[in-house]
Amino acid sequence: MRQVATTGDLHIGNVRPMGGAATSVTVRGGLVAAFGGAAPEGLETVDGGGAILIPGLVEAHTHLDKTLIGMDWYRNEVGPRLIDKIENERAQKRLLGIEPARQSARQALLSVALGSTHIRSHVDVDTEIGLAGIEGVLETRERYRGIVDIEIVAFPQSGMLIRQGTVELMEQALKLGAQVVGGLDPSAIDRDPKGHLDVVFGLAERYGRPVDIHLHETAELGAFSMELIIERTKALGMQGKVTVSHAFCLGMTDQDYVASLIDQLAEARVHILTTAPAFKSAPPVKRLVDAGVVVGAGSDGVRDTWGPYGNADMLERAVFVGLRNNFRRDDEVALALDVCTHGGARMMELEGYGLEPGCKADLVLLEGETLAEAIVSRRKRKFVVKTGRIVARDGEALLKAP
Amino acid sequence: MRQVATTGDLHIGNVRPMGGAATSVTVRGGLVAAFGGAAPEGLETVDGGGAILIPGLVEAHTHLDKTLIGMDWYRNEVGPRLIDKIENERAQKRLLGIEPARQSARQALLSVALGSTHIRSHVDVDTEIGLAGIEGVLETRERYRGIVDIEIVAFPQSGMLIRQGTVELMEQALKLGAQVVGGLDPSAIDRDPKGHLDVVFGLAERYGRPVDIHLHETAELGAFSMELIIERTKALGMQGKVTVSHAFCLGMTDQDYVASLIDQLAEARVHILTTAPAFKSAPPVKRLVDAGVVVGAGSDGVRDTWGPYGNADMLERAVFVGLRNNFRRDDEVALALDVCTHGGARMMELEGYGLEPGCKADLVLLEGETLAEAIVSRRKRKFVVKTGRIVARDGEALLKAP
Repeated sequence: MRQVATTGDLHIGNVRPMGGAATSVTVRGGLVAAFGGAAPEGLETVDGGGAILIPGLVEAHTHLDKTLIGMDWYRNEVGPRLIDKIENERAQKRLLGIEPARQSARQALLSVALGSTHIRSHVDVDTEIGLAGIEGVLETRERYRGIVDIEIVAFPQSGMLIRQGTVELMEQALKLGAQVVGGLDPSAIDRDPKGHLDVVFGLAERYGRPVDIHLHETAELGAFSMELIIERTKALGMQGKVTVSHAFCLGMTDQDYVASLIDQLAEARVHILTTAPAFKSAPPVKRLVDAGVVVGAGSDGVRDTWGPYGNADMLERAVFVGLRNNFRRDDEVALALDVCTHGGARMMELEGYGLEPGCKADLVLLEGETLAEAIVSRRKRKFVVKTGRIVARDGEALLKAP
Repeated sequence: MRQVATTGDLHIGNVRPMGGAATSVTVRGGLVAAFGGAAPEGLETVDGGGAILIPGLVEAHTHLDKTLIGMDWYRNEVGPRLIDKIENERAQKRLLGIEPARQSARQALLSVALGSTHIRSHVDVDTEIGLAGIEGVLETRERYRGIVDIEIVAFPQSGMLIRQGTVELMEQALKLGAQVVGGLDPSAIDRDPKGHLDVVFGLAERYGRPVDIHLHETAELGAFSMELIIERTKALGMQGKVTVSHAFCLGMTDQDYVASLIDQLAEARVHILTTAPAFKSAPPVKRLVDAGVVVGAGSDGVRDTWGPYGNADMLERAVFVGLRNNFRRDDEVALALDVCTHGGARMMELEGYGLEPGCKADLVLLEGETLAEAIVSRRKRKFVVKTGRIVARDGEALLKAP
């Protein structure tokens, strides 16, 4: 297992924090120490070349265990229903030989090359593969410690109550090292919203873990599930620990109901994760943020049996957030990036995240004229720094994927 | 003015037409002559390196005259309404000095680099700039003849009936060389749907030109305008000559009404142009194509005062068509590309378009494992060929923009 030092000392000259005035940044012991001034004697120094400095991108929702990156192209001929995709995937895992350790390593290093310094990955737990996905991503998490932080959500992709034995596997996944309790469509998939959420929140309470639930249910059905989630969050004092992923129901047409849901989310400090889908109703990012709700973003699946598009680029995801929410003004484009950085960081409760002195030196250098220009242009990342060490340069991770 | 020969002879070895079996293609006199076989004696020969061969991408809706490419970054602080954007743009043209000839040349060559061999550009005609936009894009059209085909739509961006003198300018634009009669939101902008469409179709009839109308009007209002357009198309025998751009109303919730509109469009052979917007209701591409309606796609504005995102990449636009329409299967991804190639070509009535022997040799070579993989990966275009001559290589146009 490759060992990488987790702290670094570094001086980067000529950078523009968030597109502002040029300065330099000094990193000591893996933390941002100071802005401005010449390179201290003896410190490794690189030239930022006037690039824009932002904190590490936060990939707050993906599926590292089942990407097909680096494997033969998968010809997608899957049916249109959610259940078609779930069942096809379970079959293909075996047929194609999708090895979770290898595949998660490939995607993790791609994310590093693209500037993500933190990843929350949902990892399948089911009665067919058992804990193989969890074990594989745990291996990747340890292997690349110091390169990228990976948080694992135990995710019952095939349903939990409808497949006997899954709850026990979920519990084992948490004991093994998964940090977050996942869930999935309490009504549409598991057919028992109360039962499903009682198990999810029961595990969360017993093990003292956060919760992140996939909620594809639309309109009134999704809103009902969301209210059940909010009720449990408050009852258990889990404010700030619960995320609803996708939350398509927040794009429903009944605007009074949406306003009520947003108020409830803000009050219970339940977070929203969006992939900014073009084809589905989607959470209104600006309204949520204005109401004080934390909103993060993620790539979701990256080139897997569900679909071919994902590419792990969180700068492109910021563009998708912008396009989906009709963000055109520069301040709106900056908000889209904020969702893909600080939003995800707050959702994941990352400590010491940001550009301020004292923060962990998780940094990305973007070439661009202004912050908005750099976002929409999505050029190769000039440098990616993880706790003060350069981990990618000119769009390439310094470590090679298996 | 630079002169470029408009026909070429060329042999490209080792290419895979539409991702199929490897072969070679021979071009004679600017036309596809044959597939297979070794390079004929004396012919310029290039190695396709196993790349995927597709016909030239068709940028079927953009605004060459007002892109800000190559100019200082424009900080967008514009208000949210359509009219805010229209009025701001008219002011900025003067303030920023957006020169139509220079700017259209820059975008045209960017399009060439990205594999577009044909462009339909709407060009503003209004009482402030008069015909300056038309003259500028006409200059670019002539300058790059043989590199890229540009079709000009006289476009009353600021309204036609609400601004006295615009109709006369529209007519002058057609006399000057604009090929298509444009229109814009007959109710929402021009406040007189009958009056607006009578003028648009009147000009089309008098000058024997096709029509392409921007229709942002949503739901029932847009559907009403669309029916007025269809009625005039049939009354004037203009089947196959009329395009409705954007057509957000086809994404309305009333599915019976949508079905009726699709039937009417198919019967009158009225085409639909989509940009596959993520934030608006949008035409359902597959339903339209299945009903026999021609659907093309375009970038719309490329980095202009309306918004920062457009980048003229029609391969990315195919991805957006896919994402917007939830196309996940390989055959669906191929359909998205078909919209960005053959769809636009049929919409613009391009003669001799395609890969068959006898077609014009407008070709793009994409690196990729399969057609779908090449589309979603959006790598630099290996070669772009216009009537048999290489005009771009490895993502760079061979001519430099001003």
